[in-house]
This record gives sequence, C-alpha cells and structure tokens, in this order.
Amino acid sequence: MSILHSVTEPVLLLDEQKCRRNIERMAEKASRHNVLLRPHFKTHQSRHIGEWFREAGISCITVSSLRMAAYFAAYGWDDITVAFPVNTLEHERINLLARHISLGLLVADTEGARLLSRIIRHSVRVWIKIDTGAHRTGVLPRDRKTIDAILQVIKRSVSLTFRGFLTHAGQSYECRNRDEITEVHRESVALLAKLADTYRSDYPDIEISTGDTPSCSVADDFSKISEIRPGNFVFYDLMQASISSCEKRDIAVAVACPVVARHNDRNELILYGGGIHFSKEFLESGDGRKIYGELVRADDSGWGEPLEGCYVSRLSQEHGTLKVTDDVFRQTAVGDVVAILPVHSCMTANCLAGYTTLSGEHLEFFDFRKEYFVRSPD
Amino acid sequence: MSILHSVTEPVLLLDEQKCRRNIERMAEKASRHNVLLRPHFKTHQSRHIGEWFREAGISCITVSSLRMAAYFAAYGWDDITVAFPVNTLEHERINLLARHISLGLLVADTEGARLLSRIIRHSVRVWIKIDTGAHRTGVLPRDRKTIDAILQVIKRSVSLTFRGFLTHAGQSYECRNRDEITEVHRESVALLAKLADTYRSDYPDIEISTGDTPSCSVADDFSKISEIRPGNFVFYDLMQASISSCEKRDIAVAVACPVVARHNDRNELILYGGGIHFSKEFLESGDGRKIYGELVRADDSGWGEPLEGCYVSRLSQEHGTLKVTDDVFRQTAVGDVVAILPVHSCMTANCLAGYTTLSGEHLEFFDFRKEYFVRSPD
Repeated sequence: MSILHSVTEPVLLLDEQKCRRNIERMAEKASRHNVLLRPHFKTHQSRHIGEWFREAGISCITVSSLRMAAYFAAYGWDDITVAFPVNTLEHERINLLARHISLGLLVADTEGARLLSRIIRHSVRVWIKIDTGAHRTGVLPRDRKTIDAILQVIKRSVSLTFRGFLTHAGQSYECRNRDEITEVHRESVALLAKLADTYRSDYPDIEISTGDTPSCSVADDFSKISEIRPGNFVFYDLMQASISSCEKRDIAVAVACPVVARHNDRNELILYGGGIHFSKEFLESGDGRKIYGELVRADDSGWGEPLEGCYVSRLSQEHGTLKVTDDVFRQTAVGDVVAILPVHSCMTANCLAGYTTLSGEHLEFFDFRKEYFVRSPD
Repeated sequence: MSILHSVTEPVLLLDEQKCRRNIERMAEKASRHNVLLRPHFKTHQSRHIGEWFREAGISCITVSSLRMAAYFAAYGWDDITVAFPVNTLEHERINLLARHISLGLLVADTEGARLLSRIIRHSVRVWIKIDTGAHRTGVLPRDRKTIDAILQVIKRSVSLTFRGFLTHAGQSYECRNRDEITEVHRESVALLAKLADTYRSDYPDIEISTGDTPSCSVADDFSKISEIRPGNFVFYDLMQASISSCEKRDIAVAVACPVVARHNDRNELILYGGGIHFSKEFLESGDGRKIYGELVRADDSGWGEPLEGCYVSRLSQEHGTLKVTDDVFRQTAVGDVVAILPVHSCMTANCLAGYTTLSGEHLEFFDFRKEYFVRSPD
C-alpha cells in the first residue's frame, strides 16, 4: 500500500533519502572547499531533520528568528547565527540565548548596533550585514562611514565581538542559468573580500559569510569565504530548478492533496490544497501561465519527474486547481490523493508545519506559538 | 502606553470595536432582507470571535474544512456547513460530526455524491455546488444531467437530504466597483433562482445559498436568497477596499511589525514581518507597483486611514520592505513598531494564527495540527 493511501488531508511528504543526499552533497562540497557549512534551518524548521544534519557532521547552524534559535537551542544546538537584522525588542530572548549558547547576530545599520550594545549582557559575535546587490538590507560596501561607525560601537562594548562581513546575495534568485548564478557569486564575494582586506589589519580573524542556495549549489570557487549558509538546498523546489540550481529529481518534498472534484469539460482536478497549504508563490511559464506546483507520480519509493502538462494553475484559500492531460484526467478519480512539487519549499513547509516521510513517520516542525527554552547544563 | 509598546514580534492587532461593527452591520442587513446570515468562519478561525457573532444573534456558521468544523463544534456550534467539495477521505470525522451536530456538506459532481452516499452513516443536508461564473468548482447551471444524477444519488440515500443550490460568486473579486459587483450578484442569483424554480415541484423547500463578501456588502436585493455566507467582512482588507466592497476605515486588523533597519538612501524601513506573516498576496497599483500592505498610525484607540505613499513594497520569508515618505522616515526609528493593513486578511490571519486586541487581550486561533472533538451532551 502506498503512503498516499494513508493521507486524508494536505500533508507535506518528505523523501528522506533525497533530503539526506542533498545534505550530504552540500556538506561534502563545503568540506572539499574547506569552508564551514552553517546551514540555514529556516527551510525545514524541524529538530528531526536537524539530526540528519548532525549525522552529516554539522554543528553550527543559521536561523531566521530569535524564537527559532530558542527552538533549536532547546534541542541541543549551541552555535547559532540569527541571520536577520537583530530585533532588540526581544532583548530577553537574546540575553537568555547568549547566556547559554554561542550566538551570532547581525547588524545592518548603526542604529541597530547601538541598540544591541545597550541591551546585551552576555558575549555574542556580531556580523555586519553587507548589501552586495540584493538591495533588501545591509550596508553598501562603499559606505565605509557606516561600517566604521558600527565597528566603533562594537569596539566600545565588552559583550560584542566583531566576526566579519555577511551577505545574502538574494539577487541570484533572479538568475536564469548557472552562468548568471556563478557571476552573481563571483561579484558578491569579490566585494566582501575587498572589504575584509581593508579591515584585516585591525581584525586579523575577520571572516566572510555568504548564503544563498543558488550560489552554494552552482559555484565552484569558495576560496575567499569562511562559511556558507544555504537553506533551501535541503529540499530544493521548482523555483530552484527553474534557475538550474538543482534538478527536479533532487526535490525532496511534495504536497499530498486529496482530489475532491473533477471538471471533465476542462481537464481540471480540484484539490484539497490551497494557498494556506502551498503559499501563493508561483512561477511564470514562457507563455505567461502561472504555475503554483507540478504533478508527480508518487509511491512508497518516492516520486519521479513532473508529468508534462500537469500543473496547479490556481490557488484559493483551501482549493487548488490542477490542470492535467487527457490521460491523467481519465486515470484520476475523486478520492484519490495526488502529489505536487512545490514552487517554494521554504514557504510551503512553513504552511504545512510538519512532514510525513515515505515510511509514514511524522517529523515535528517548530511551532512559533510556543515558547522554547534552552536546556541549561546546570 | 500604546499597545504597540508591548509588541516584540509580528502579531495581528484586532480592533474589536471595528470588528463587532462589521459583524453587526452584516447581521442587521441580513435581518432587514429576511435572509439567514451563516457567516464563513474561515476568515477569523477563532472561538473568541465566534462568541461576538453569537452575541449578534448568529447560530449557524460556515467553515472551509472538516477539521475546522470539529474545532467550532468543540466550542458549541451545532449547525455548520462545510463549504468545500466534501472530502470523503475524512469519513470518520464526517460521521463523528454528523452524529453530534446539524451538518451541511457540498457536492460538486456525481462522483463526490456517490462517495458521500457510500460513507455516510448519519443525517446530513447536502448542497449542490453550482458554478455561476467563478469557474473554480461546481456544476454548470445548464448541466441538468449532472444535477439530476446527483439528485438521484441523494434520493437513494437514507442519510442524505437535499437542501438546495449553493454558489460562491468569486468572480466578484475581479470587479473594480460597486456597479460591477452588483451585476455579478444579480447574474449569479438569477441563475440559481431559475434552477431552484425548475426543481421546486420536487423539492418545495429548496434553498439558495450565496456567499462572497463583495456581493453581500454591496448588493441590495436578496429577495430570492435563503442564506448568505460571507466571511471576509469580519475584518475586510485592502483588496476589498480596492474593489469598493468596504472603506479602508472598516479594516479591523493590522499587522504590528518591529522596525529592524533603516535605509536612508531610499526611504525604506526593514520590518520584521514577511511572507510567513502577511502571506504573499499583493495588489497592483495603477503604475504597476506591487503593494503588500499599507502603513497606518496606530495607538490604543485604533488606527486611521493609510498614510499616503507608505506601503510594503517587497516581502521575503521574514523581511518586509516598507517604502515611506521623508517625514515618516525621519519620525521612525529602529526598534519602533509599525502597523500595516493587510492585502488579504483571511490569508494573513491564517499566517499569524492569533490576535492581540487593542486592550492587549490574546484571542485564540484554530490550530490545524490539533484534533478537536465535539462535546457530546451525553
């Protein structure tokens, strides 16, 4: 009996073998290039999947919120960078974490650095976030005045230690192929390396941290980099495949959705599975169609490549519309369960908040409604 | 001290007064038109807000999933329609609900009806979903063959009772003004009324159920309708305001977000508040800009109209980029908390999964990871 036969509501299926292979491949690549892999756990947000990373030799991680840091700290992770401009309103959580684990924080401007220096009561390492082209947040590399001002604030604090420059070259998500990704990576690293050289006399141990999954998957020069922080690679998704940062066969998660109605006048299957399950992220096809997911055939051994011409064309809150070919339409009945590869696995995992492995095991997901506490050794 | 001063992470602020006024206005309108208001609880998903509806005289409700039906049944709601093509894979939950409460279910095709008749062991009322133009799901009004086939299945079952025709004229969301909404409503109701007339000799108590918030907010002719099922009106949002189904001052929820960085070269504030908090729904402005939310000034008495020229222009997983005017930029510091009106309140509420009222009270949200059980009176 297939795992799909146990599904009655939308769930996120996880192919453990593909997932572990994605982890191992990145760990092996990092090790080959002599760079620390500090994976971003915001994609999977699961202590169970965290253990698979540990088995691959990972001990330092990245998260996107302080609450998520507390979750992983509660499960034994003791070296965590929160790769988000530090939210000093959470000063209690910051200090609790900093007291118990080795904590890395980001500052993206002088104001943030000043606020941090005011509230911090334990040692933390500080990264200056540099904007190497994504233009979301961070100091521009040419803005030495701001960098110097932040360094002054750090220097005056007994708790803060400057660690180096960190970027997220998110512009790689706009690339269309491996050459473009490699070029984004090269430019971004060159900017950081130049900056690090400028400050190395004052900070001999200065480090460079970069992050995006496309660059880490595709690039092959990590010589100037201390650590990489990719996250999405643990699952990959259709968006990553569309920019050739992975193959579709690497995608390790699929949303299992019951079919609740069929429209034979237009070859559409109505899925129990909507925007609250997939998120509303979409890809645009060459001819302007929106694609919210692609159909795969799944059984207990996993799934293959998406079926040509079968894709989710529309999502409302709980409904999905799956366009299919004549053949697939004929073969699929109301009450069947289908498997859909997601466009953006980070968002979809966050929506479904839990995993069902192909062997039927349930893997826990971080619950942002809960308070998690670091286990104190004393 | 403003409620914003107690916020440290993204939360959904709720103006109870606006929300109760939205509820009362719709309840009063339904009563004036002698139509049953069976509000859709998928927007708020909160037992606490459910009580405000009860105080406004509401006793029959709509939900979008069987699990959500179980949640509200657990809190004393005993007349619930699940306005989603019935997912018979959840037959245990269906039968448990049907045993304890008055349950309404939808069938959207003959296959769904047959599956339902096979699994059902307790009385339920059945609505045939009619597609009056949204083209998401439902039987086309001219497809009498399918309607007759479904009615035959219902007739042969001892547990199923035909209740009538139900539609969701979701095409009203594509309207641009009140006239267009009124026209969608008129056409949709005319189709259902004609269909009901055709079957009234066999089913003298046949009913008509319509639903969308735009039609229910704007239209003024409900003479042929038995019940209305709007949901979004409880909060409204920028999307509803953009099609003039409400005024912006009616919007009863706002996302409170800490400001974590500032970019003075481009008047941008970086918010702790991203796609996992707002959802990725956006509106397009006349000049092609994407708008993911609008800034309001909030204090303990609520908030006013959005500030001209201040909107969320970009969302990633946890980051939001708020474009602001020179004045607002100067007045806002890192560590402040700002309030943002959401584009689509149903999706945003689902993301944030809880409410903080202006008086600081926390209101519970349905947790889809939990099992809820009907409280049996015996």
